[in-house]
Amino acid sequence: MTSRKKKSIVFIGAGSLASHLSNAFFIAGHNILQVFSRTKESAKQLADHLNTAWTNDTAKILVGADVYVIALPDNCLAEFVGAIDFGNSLVVHTAGSIGIKIFMGRAKNYGVFYPLQTFSKIRQIDFKNIPICIEANNCGNEIILKNLAADISDHVIKINSDQRQYLHLAAVIACNFSNHMFCLSSMVLDQKNLPFRLLKPLILEMTMKASDYHPVESQTGPAVRNDQNVIKKHLDLLSFSPEIQHLYDVVSQDIIRLHQSGLT
Amino acid sequence: MTSRKKKSIVFIGAGSLASHLSNAFFIAGHNILQVFSRTKESAKQLADHLNTAWTNDTAKILVGADVYVIALPDNCLAEFVGAIDFGNSLVVHTAGSIGIKIFMGRAKNYGVFYPLQTFSKIRQIDFKNIPICIEANNCGNEIILKNLAADISDHVIKINSDQRQYLHLAAVIACNFSNHMFCLSSMVLDQKNLPFRLLKPLILEMTMKASDYHPVESQTGPAVRNDQNVIKKHLDLLSFSPEIQHLYDVVSQDIIRLHQSGLT
Repeated sequence: MTSRKKKSIVFIGAGSLASHLSNAFFIAGHNILQVFSRTKESAKQLADHLNTAWTNDTAKILVGADVYVIALPDNCLAEFVGAIDFGNSLVVHTAGSIGIKIFMGRAKNYGVFYPLQTFSKIRQIDFKNIPICIEANNCGNEIILKNLAADISDHVIKINSDQRQYLHLAAVIACNFSNHMFCLSSMVLDQKNLPFRLLKPLILEMTMKASDYHPVESQTGPAVRNDQNVIKKHLDLLSFSPEIQHLYDVVSQDIIRLHQSGLT
Repeated sequence: MTSRKKKSIVFIGAGSLASHLSNAFFIAGHNILQVFSRTKESAKQLADHLNTAWTNDTAKILVGADVYVIALPDNCLAEFVGAIDFGNSLVVHTAGSIGIKIFMGRAKNYGVFYPLQTFSKIRQIDFKNIPICIEANNCGNEIILKNLAADISDHVIKINSDQRQYLHLAAVIACNFSNHMFCLSSMVLDQKNLPFRLLKPLILEMTMKASDYHPVESQTGPAVRNDQNVIKKHLDLLSFSPEIQHLYDVVSQDIIRLHQSGLT
């Protein structure tokens, strides 16, 4: 912690991200003024944890906080941004897929505060290593966000809205699509009553290897070797699920394409 | 280490798996008699590390070792198994995709010793947590393999050839296909000159979450929410690569299918 002036912060949203982020700001010494959530229970639960006020009525959101952090689902962000008067306060959203322009004409001081991580209420998160991507409508606000981010993370990066939409897309492919591969893999194991946890050391090592080097360099397996015998055998084994069979074929062909294209 | 009699072991193959496995047996106190490799350099390199003999001539493979471990590429396994007389020694292969039957009529005592992990020469591996899947042609050999595996790992499992081919298929989907998602993701980041390392905390957390709970429960992102606005926007952003665009579409549809099917 630095000796910078602590901020008063209102959280709009009380989901996984809001819970982790408000907690990180709380620990860093900032003053969480209030928590708003559309549902009373989740507003109260997070506010109790932070020992602060809560509301589920947009009309009762406190005015004049230093910073408003909106951590709501992407598809209801526009509605809430339009419904609240932020006055001269700084307001940020936390959505990867939404540009800074959503605030234009609806706030004077605004920006984006996007922590690049997947959050769940039940898991502890250490913000220290999480990249926090910031963007602001002017230099003064950028400095405020940079300092706020630096209070909780060692990796603060200025990312504009155009870059951020590609970053979010890359995150979806890297995180959600890989997780889907794990799902399909668990369904294959189910065929022989084998538990998914058997693969834990394998997928952890694969992920660390891809992180420490580069995934293109660390690829292994039948497709990158273009081993058609094994691919054919696997497609046969997958006859229990035409959907997984199709996906195996599409992904294998794409691995072969990528590694033969010279793009690697 | 237990007080069981140490085994004399010949390694046939000197690639990543052979290097890590022979080293683990060496540390566990077993006697690595010789290393065979098709190329002189790799045979010599591994043998020097283990302070033992080497050859690149199948006719010069020492006879009478307790155990022969074949760690060769899957597609040349049959040829080598047929070319060597193992006498009464126990011979095992280490391939996920090949059944135990490959030894029938070619050896008297045989089995499979399959460590479920991805290996690279440059990365250190701790065998302790790696599942080692064993199979043998009789109970006596099974006990020998179980003890050998227990000398280097805390996770020894009896897996028959039928189960192992599904396990190997699941490993390919979970490991190689996820890694491919990371590759595609890095190509998206390349569009804006963003480094892949930005995603490191995200993919590590996603992998740990999927391991600690279950990937079907830990799925997040636009597809599992069936958020067609974000999906449409991402498909537009991917117009720079029709191949990644197609894969994004296929995987997203499959996530929607899986999570709406009630299978989860």
